[in-house]
Amino acid sequence: MPRRSAAAARDTRRQIVARALDRASVEGLEGLTIGRLADELGMSKAGVVGHFGSKEGLQLAVVDAARESFTRDVWEPVADEPPGLRRLLAACEAWIADVIGRYPGGCFFTAAAAEFDGRPGPVRDEVAAMWARWQRTLEQDVAAAIEAGEIPPGEDPQQLAFELRAIVLGLNQSLQLAGDGSAPERARRAVRRVLGVTDSAPV
Amino acid sequence: MPRRSAAAARDTRRQIVARALDRASVEGLEGLTIGRLADELGMSKAGVVGHFGSKEGLQLAVVDAARESFTRDVWEPVADEPPGLRRLLAACEAWIADVIGRYPGGCFFTAAAAEFDGRPGPVRDEVAAMWARWQRTLEQDVAAAIEAGEIPPGEDPQQLAFELRAIVLGLNQSLQLAGDGSAPERARRAVRRVLGVTDSAPV
Repeated sequence: MPRRSAAAARDTRRQIVARALDRASVEGLEGLTIGRLADELGMSKAGVVGHFGSKEGLQLAVVDAARESFTRDVWEPVADEPPGLRRLLAACEAWIADVIGRYPGGCFFTAAAAEFDGRPGPVRDEVAAMWARWQRTLEQDVAAAIEAGEIPPGEDPQQLAFELRAIVLGLNQSLQLAGDGSAPERARRAVRRVLGVTDSAPV
Repeated sequence: MPRRSAAAARDTRRQIVARALDRASVEGLEGLTIGRLADELGMSKAGVVGHFGSKEGLQLAVVDAARESFTRDVWEPVADEPPGLRRLLAACEAWIADVIGRYPGGCFFTAAAAEFDGRPGPVRDEVAAMWARWQRTLEQDVAAAIEAGEIPPGEDPQQLAFELRAIVLGLNQSLQLAGDGSAPERARRAVRRVLGVTDSAPV
């Protein structure tokens, strides 16, 4: 196959995945249909399926793209800062911003977790692995903050990471189900409570 | 129609809804199919549809049954206690127990919220109304606890209710996606942190 066609195929695949990712945030990964994606992109169904082999292949490609997006927008901007409270707060702020604005239908990984937690298979495994990695990342920064004396030594990194994750799930539900515009500020206040940062502290 | 048939019809309807509710907690309200329910219950598809008129009618009946179940198992056992911190803690404990054990696929209303937040219509409206009512109930008990001096006067009932709701969403995700057996105890610790109850306090 000539080079130009391979590059064009990659571009097309990327377009399909980007569209599917936006749709999945609204209607779920199971709500994706090859036929509708093909219609929307002016392609044949065979042309769409050819890139992924199956609907599950498409779903896995969408999860992979969501992971790349999250890493790029939430983690990479803070990854070079030293571990500890300051980076943890910056990561939570980037995470909150991502939940607010990244997808038309709210946080992709929150929706995918709720949708696939009862559906065993590779899609569920990838979604669970993503959440587990992020939880560990948060735990490591909590541990660094405890080590640095920024968080009291009696706190448990797993407990605090659990609570931070819960806050962001609550934020997403408030935004998507109740359209509650005060939810981002509530989430920020909750993050500060969990991390023991007083509202006036200049962190 | 003779009395006995009307009673039998109500029983049959109740059986269909109970089965559909369990299924929906695993596969979602959109994952319900009249055909499969009919197969499982040894009925004809027309026999199932006849009770609800449409798939949406069935979904609304399922949401209604879930609301009744939640009211019976979480709210009614504590409703007669005086408003305030003690009742709030008891309600949170009943809520946590419900999320742990009530459904084969985890908390029905958490899954339904994630599934329907992007699907306008009566099912979404009912799910959102249920969450809003529960949030107000929690806010009222937080306000009573502040009034009684059990929670510091600077706290905001809406903020604390937001955080309690978030914790239970986090619990459900930890149980369903990660199978994390420590999650209920983490949720209880988080509830105590939000309500300012020290771990050793005999509430």
